[in-house]
Amino acid sequence: MDKKLKIVGICGSLRKESLNRKALNASRKFFPPDVEFEIVEIGDMPFFNQDLELNLPESVAKFREKIQSADGILFAMPEYNYSVSAVLKNAIEWGSRPYGKAVLYGKPVGIMGVSTGMMGTGRAQYHLRQICVQVDMYPLNKPEVMIPLGMDKFDKEGSLIDVHSADKIERLVNALVIWTSKLASVVVK
Amino acid sequence: MDKKLKIVGICGSLRKESLNRKALNASRKFFPPDVEFEIVEIGDMPFFNQDLELNLPESVAKFREKIQSADGILFAMPEYNYSVSAVLKNAIEWGSRPYGKAVLYGKPVGIMGVSTGMMGTGRAQYHLRQICVQVDMYPLNKPEVMIPLGMDKFDKEGSLIDVHSADKIERLVNALVIWTSKLASVVVK
Amino acid sequence: MDKKLKIVGICGSLRKESLNRKALNASRKFFPPDVEFEIVEIGDMPFFNQDLELNLPESVAKFREKIQSADGILFAMPEYNYSVSAVLKNAIEWGSRPYGKAVLYGKPVGIMGVSTGMMGTGRAQYHLRQICVQVDMYPLNKPEVMIPLGMDKFDKEGSLIDVHSADKIERLVNALVIWTSKLASVVVK
Amino acid sequence: MDKKLKIVGICGSLRKESLNRKALNASRKFFPPDVEFEIVEIGDMPFFNQDLELNLPESVAKFREKIQSADGILFAMPEYNYSVSAVLKNAIEWGSRPYGKAVLYGKPVGIMGVSTGMMGTGRAQYHLRQICVQVDMYPLNKPEVMIPLGMDKFDKEGSLIDVHSADKIERLVNALVIWTSKLASVVVK
Repeated sequence: MDKKLKIVGICGSLRKESLNRKALNASRKFFPPDVEFEIVEIGDMPFFNQDLELNLPESVAKFREKIQSADGILFAMPEYNYSVSAVLKNAIEWGSRPYGKAVLYGKPVGIMGVSTGMMGTGRAQYHLRQICVQVDMYPLNKPEVMIPLGMDKFDKEGSLIDVHSADKIERLVNALVIWTSKLASVVVK
Repeated sequence: MDKKLKIVGICGSLRKESLNRKALNASRKFFPPDVEFEIVEIGDMPFFNQDLELNLPESVAKFREKIQSADGILFAMPEYNYSVSAVLKNAIEWGSRPYGKAVLYGKPVGIMGVSTGMMGTGRAQYHLRQICVQVDMYPLNKPEVMIPLGMDKFDKEGSLIDVHSADKIERLVNALVIWTSKLASVVVK
Repeated sequence: MDKKLKIVGICGSLRKESLNRKALNASRKFFPPDVEFEIVEIGDMPFFNQDLELNLPESVAKFREKIQSADGILFAMPEYNYSVSAVLKNAIEWGSRPYGKAVLYGKPVGIMGVSTGMMGTGRAQYHLRQICVQVDMYPLNKPEVMIPLGMDKFDKEGSLIDVHSADKIERLVNALVIWTSKLASVVVK
Repeated sequence: MDKKLKIVGICGSLRKESLNRKALNASRKFFPPDVEFEIVEIGDMPFFNQDLELNLPESVAKFREKIQSADGILFAMPEYNYSVSAVLKNAIEWGSRPYGKAVLYGKPVGIMGVSTGMMGTGRAQYHLRQICVQVDMYPLNKPEVMIPLGMDKFDKEGSLIDVHSADKIERLVNALVIWTSKLASVVVK
């Protein structure tokens, strides 16, 4: 294939010191040189509102272009109230419209999450997986990357210093690259 | 009890012609005269961001005051991508903080939803129920109000004209009022 | 009330050395003297089959009597394949029938689980909570008792030796006893 | 490929007049001639119990052989108490063991369900999808086949007479055959 594979990373937390942002940054080095990896911002879009679709906000149009150009998605997601964060859900709402021409449609997906507690965002990840059924996105079953007790796993500069977590992220990136490169030929449309 | 019971209604859709907004309006007449019912707006809050908590946005502070003053909550929720809408999730995120002093904590909850499809927002409602576990909210088990094919159930002025749906909403309101008036004495803190 | 409160314990694993069985045994000492606690067996019932209801198996009839006599339920549940074990689900199926006269209907519920992995049976517990909506059972929101890495938390005789886990179980039992004693006056029928 | 593709059908209800059994029978005619379709029985296995694995029951050994020989699975599932039926869950428990050599591992999956109510077994299907993550099974996202009000959709002989439902099942079978034939080359192991 001449065209370089492109994976887009999306972080579900807006907080400056977001552990998931740090994990997404940590994933960058695991992508092979022939795969482009770009983190896309989602915090500047308004709440999804069908009325706004007639005159699409520029922030939404830009987000959709980024997703349209991507072959696969890597989500780094916090867990808020045992579910997906509003800001991440909102990006999916905009990306799953309009019906029949959704930019997220058919995308291969990798999921990871870092929490300060014990569950590593697992509860939110299963909600995201149900969302993927509607959007017709294809999440990898394995590896599931749920990183608990995240406070201790990054240094002051925000670098991931936990070898075990780094290994999990590396395996996820590897699996996502393979999944993305092969799935296009399989998805039933 | 001298103090009047107060129920707050929250609509999970921002669309002007929202069917859930109409259903929430339709619920008003079923509240008994000694219960105050107020619809609270949620569309003007920014996305939850822990960094903003140090200097709380006024829209969030106002929302929290409204919830603080309520004895129970009635959610009218759409289903977006098989889950809770971002704007509703965002309100819950703000209402469930700060940890230990969350205004939503311990509230009795009634849930209803209107969809244009067949499921009546059921998939989103079960996600909301999981969210309630974290926030320590107490949703009624029954009646579950899932109104499918909602396009045909309101007239041009937005009034609910489907007798069966009206009956379900009436039973939900009745159950929520009883649940709210009694639960305070039971919740284990 | 003259009648002693009765809580029934149900273990969702049949394995002889079941960690959940051991946890259920460990819970016994936390019940106050005026509360009866009995573990009910569920492994001898056939798979639920509507055809069998016309001539109810004796094992099912006995199970139903036990549940009928209980004021509340304490589930100790493993997680199999990210969900409720078949044997536990089967007991609920029999206990939720016949429609309108289900013995499980309206029962207050406490949930705990022990796993060998990191999640402490959390994924299965949220599935059970959804099941409770249908059966109209009332699970406590808190405390959620998810005991990970269970292999190290019991001694060779099967006694719970982990202080932190014992504390969580004690708090669950206390909350369940209060919840059970008070909820009957509140449930909307 | 010389070897004929083989799809195994599993019905999650034991009832003689099971609507899901009838739907599974109705699916047979939609398989192309070069695909073998066989319905596998699951009602004669004991409840999963790790202790029994040392001396595997013959019914379980036979079930595992059938699954081992299959390239894909078609589930026809009822919804009991808003979740997967015990008998179907039990088959999955046996089929997902032993760890690392599970016969269900990696299988492409199609899901359909018939209910007497309005939801068409949707709630149970999302639980099954979560189970698939653990077992590393690959369910089709679309079409989702949820057939509500199933009582009126079969004639006295048990034949499917509803054209719309038949069409949904046909599309599912077609998609499952394509998905099964292609997925083997993609799954990341």
